[in-house]
Amino acid sequence: MTETPHPLYAAHAETLTRALTAITERGYWSAYPESPSPRVYGETAAADGEAAFRAYLGGDFPLDQPGAGDRVATEVSPFGVDLGVRYPHADPDALIAAATTALPAWRDAGPRTRTGVCLEILARLHRHVFELANAVQFTSGQAFVMAFQAGGAHALDRALEAVAYAYAEMNRHPGTADWEKPAGKGEPLRMVKTFHVVPRGVALVIGCNTFPTWNSYPGLFASLVTGNPVLVKPHPRAVLPLAITVRYAREVLAEAGFDPNLVQLAVEAPGEGLASGLATRPEVKIVDFTGSTEYGDWLEDNARQAAVYTEKAGLNTVVVDSTDDFAGMCRNLGFTLTLYSGQMCTTSQNILIPAGGIETDQGHRSFDEVAAGIAAAVGKLTGDPARGVELTGAIVNDGVLERLTEAAKLGEVVLESRTVEHPKYPGAVVRTPTIVKLAADAAEIYGREWFGPISFVIATDSTEHSLRIFRDTVGAGGALTAGVYSTDEDVLDAAEKVAVDVGVHLSCNLTGGVFVNQSAAFSDFHASGANPAANAALTDGAYVANRFRIVQSRRHA
Amino acid sequence: MTETPHPLYAAHAETLTRALTAITERGYWSAYPESPSPRVYGETAAADGEAAFRAYLGGDFPLDQPGAGDRVATEVSPFGVDLGVRYPHADPDALIAAATTALPAWRDAGPRTRTGVCLEILARLHRHVFELANAVQFTSGQAFVMAFQAGGAHALDRALEAVAYAYAEMNRHPGTADWEKPAGKGEPLRMVKTFHVVPRGVALVIGCNTFPTWNSYPGLFASLVTGNPVLVKPHPRAVLPLAITVRYAREVLAEAGFDPNLVQLAVEAPGEGLASGLATRPEVKIVDFTGSTEYGDWLEDNARQAAVYTEKAGLNTVVVDSTDDFAGMCRNLGFTLTLYSGQMCTTSQNILIPAGGIETDQGHRSFDEVAAGIAAAVGKLTGDPARGVELTGAIVNDGVLERLTEAAKLGEVVLESRTVEHPKYPGAVVRTPTIVKLAADAAEIYGREWFGPISFVIATDSTEHSLRIFRDTVGAGGALTAGVYSTDEDVLDAAEKVAVDVGVHLSCNLTGGVFVNQSAAFSDFHASGANPAANAALTDGAYVANRFRIVQSRRHA
Repeated sequence: MTETPHPLYAAHAETLTRALTAITERGYWSAYPESPSPRVYGETAAADGEAAFRAYLGGDFPLDQPGAGDRVATEVSPFGVDLGVRYPHADPDALIAAATTALPAWRDAGPRTRTGVCLEILARLHRHVFELANAVQFTSGQAFVMAFQAGGAHALDRALEAVAYAYAEMNRHPGTADWEKPAGKGEPLRMVKTFHVVPRGVALVIGCNTFPTWNSYPGLFASLVTGNPVLVKPHPRAVLPLAITVRYAREVLAEAGFDPNLVQLAVEAPGEGLASGLATRPEVKIVDFTGSTEYGDWLEDNARQAAVYTEKAGLNTVVVDSTDDFAGMCRNLGFTLTLYSGQMCTTSQNILIPAGGIETDQGHRSFDEVAAGIAAAVGKLTGDPARGVELTGAIVNDGVLERLTEAAKLGEVVLESRTVEHPKYPGAVVRTPTIVKLAADAAEIYGREWFGPISFVIATDSTEHSLRIFRDTVGAGGALTAGVYSTDEDVLDAAEKVAVDVGVHLSCNLTGGVFVNQSAAFSDFHASGANPAANAALTDGAYVANRFRIVQSRRHA
Repeated sequence: MTETPHPLYAAHAETLTRALTAITERGYWSAYPESPSPRVYGETAAADGEAAFRAYLGGDFPLDQPGAGDRVATEVSPFGVDLGVRYPHADPDALIAAATTALPAWRDAGPRTRTGVCLEILARLHRHVFELANAVQFTSGQAFVMAFQAGGAHALDRALEAVAYAYAEMNRHPGTADWEKPAGKGEPLRMVKTFHVVPRGVALVIGCNTFPTWNSYPGLFASLVTGNPVLVKPHPRAVLPLAITVRYAREVLAEAGFDPNLVQLAVEAPGEGLASGLATRPEVKIVDFTGSTEYGDWLEDNARQAAVYTEKAGLNTVVVDSTDDFAGMCRNLGFTLTLYSGQMCTTSQNILIPAGGIETDQGHRSFDEVAAGIAAAVGKLTGDPARGVELTGAIVNDGVLERLTEAAKLGEVVLESRTVEHPKYPGAVVRTPTIVKLAADAAEIYGREWFGPISFVIATDSTEHSLRIFRDTVGAGGALTAGVYSTDEDVLDAAEKVAVDVGVHLSCNLTGGVFVNQSAAFSDFHASGANPAANAALTDGAYVANRFRIVQSRRHA
């Protein structure tokens, strides 16, 4: 069981070293360029990637897996594009059996070999990043550039971050240690101890519709690199990005001499409930999930044999007290609400503004003027359909449309949602964000999540009142992000104190090119695990440390 | 919320640095001398400690806590000594309220200050180690030297180990980081990020009867140093060691300017079920428990709002294949069975020996000769009552006596348990170990834990058969320790493979002064978290990483 690292470990040593430094410093770093420009990726990369994506459509996805009898096609593109990709329909028993069989050799290969192979998988996926970006775009409804960044480069960064944390954790202890205990005048006691890194068992990753890669990669790679075979269960409407991921992961595993069944795709027919079945199997020891609070809670309550990592819904909140850059604030918030038409788990929902208005660099601005300022910023970003759809993308599912309809009846509509014809994809379902004005006593409305392009401007008695609502709602419902705008250090400190108390990450006075709904791998933690919106963070020690255990053996030297 | 470390941090910096090195290397190190010799601790230390212990007896334990109305005395000494210490009877609401109040200042003091204060508590406890040792002896039934070592020095080592892991984990990320992202030809984006270490909430430590300090200290100090106020709920029969611990911890906390209610003793009246009530309180976010599988499972199932760390029962197993030191093997196993009359969670229960006997340096030894050899070693250690009781100590409770009676009827008794008159404490309940011969098909007997001085020699078809039973029983029931004796490298490798598969720590060919039931802090992991006997290990990253979360705030530079 001694480890001779696979040559892929040396091949990616530089990337690993840099990533290990990055997670220690948590300053800016990225391994995978986020610009899809031909100057970065080459003149043909975009066209090649799109062609590779199109070649999958209407066909059998090339995946040779155990127990695949019939095929299923469950995807419906928010862009109205006919996908029709047919995936092997998983037999849970066959998947679990194949994963279990694959485990020992992968475990015994040791941390360095596994790290080298995982980094090669990331490199391989990066080579296919345009293909991935197209798959993300047309299943999630993200616009292309966002799909390339969040679904491609940033997803790979988050994966690498998780691998680096796991590598550091597995190497926190030496593989062997000499132990020599003095024994008075006699010979010392001498032992040689071997510390085996042992995986937990089979891991399950349950993907979501909106961020099929970004939200799945950290768990997938954290589990895989620590020795656990992984079953990847995509959302039925966003299979392709993870099918492509599994395809290339299996290719690399096989090339490196390992059982490709270390990574398997678990696709279900509609209504099959495959995730629940797999998550409660005794062999499954790790579950990663992103999605609804309801199902995340179900997993935590029922997958009791497994370590369960969940990211669920929350009440992302912004406290507006004052600003020395009113235009910048409105632009920044407007962009946040517009991006992917508010369908990010990090998009601000509740914007708390004193009813009496705020002080700004442009003088006093009434509540309605602040609301109008944000609405105008959204309007500007979405005014031109051709440019607007490159920010908003398309609406991921009918649930969002239903909530949009409902939201219009909740209060005074400050900004109406509009239906936009997509200039390129006539079947695309595009909606611009809505902003609705609510009173502070409407907590039964703003105290739950309205996933989609729906935000509330909430009139409070004062900033102190806003902070109280921030504390109460996020304390009870959780949040992934929070923001505050103030020129008063005391208010910023008070907001930070609330954020620490309720356990939510806070962004202060964002007026430029950084947005509350975006987190940068290697620097920003995504989710805190300290409030009901998530029980874990991307990525910290707690996210990786319990994906493996150490088993020691000792004998006299 | 910036941290200026308390002077105690600098005062203990050297110890901390050495401990951090130790957990990285996992070779031999100890911070607290394990010899109670006057040459180490001074001429009067032993007498002073005993006097301090005796001063508690029959009186009100000096502890000023919130909500303490009446007093309760629940301890019965296995040595027959009248204890009669009266403890403040806890009001759960008052304890939780006081802990909650104490949290913010402790959190905001930061990792370094908390580490300094915790190390001062350990130093203070070390100054009172003889007092602690007496308290452990007379509540647990351990003989004095063992109580001093396991209950004093080694417990402090395990506490320091946990503090070092937690310190490393909290400092894995910087407190602040500058983030500068290039922005093409424009000005780079610049942010300053602050990373707050935030505790989970109130922590609960549920102590056990046999090792009130050793098994409680890691969780207590891991939770405290990461910012969580701790409620210490002792076993009703072993309150004093933890009462003394809480007393000195509160003393240090107050001296350092913190709320002493960061550490509170939660004592119950008989049958009150205080642990279950506290463990399921919404404010309680961490539970550490050592004890029965039944109650550990109950906690895992019911304290769903908390991270629950349990050490439960298991089937500690030894596979005997062959040996080049038959006498040493028998001596070593005999000592393991005799120490604390087998009442360690690590004591071997199932000794698997081929029915056809084994090869040794003394030639072939039949199954009965191997069993007799081990029995003779126990007999030698316990033959002289005065020396014997210094190894066996006393029997912790009536449940052990009942099992002893039952065990005598299970099969051929190779070694009878004897009742021993304690030369010094006439009321002490002392029993020597029993060894019972079982057939390999008696899994319904040896497949469950027989806590106490009860071990089985089990006749198997072959070593291969022994390894199969090892795999099946420990795979299903878990274990904290396993051992193997063989002169054949292939057998040692096969045993190690099984150990890795079922996730149990393995000791090979122990014939000298290291015993399978002992683990050394800073080097040996205690429990693996990889089998049903425990869901965590002392101590690794997973044990500390989820006791706090990181909450970040960021703003433009």
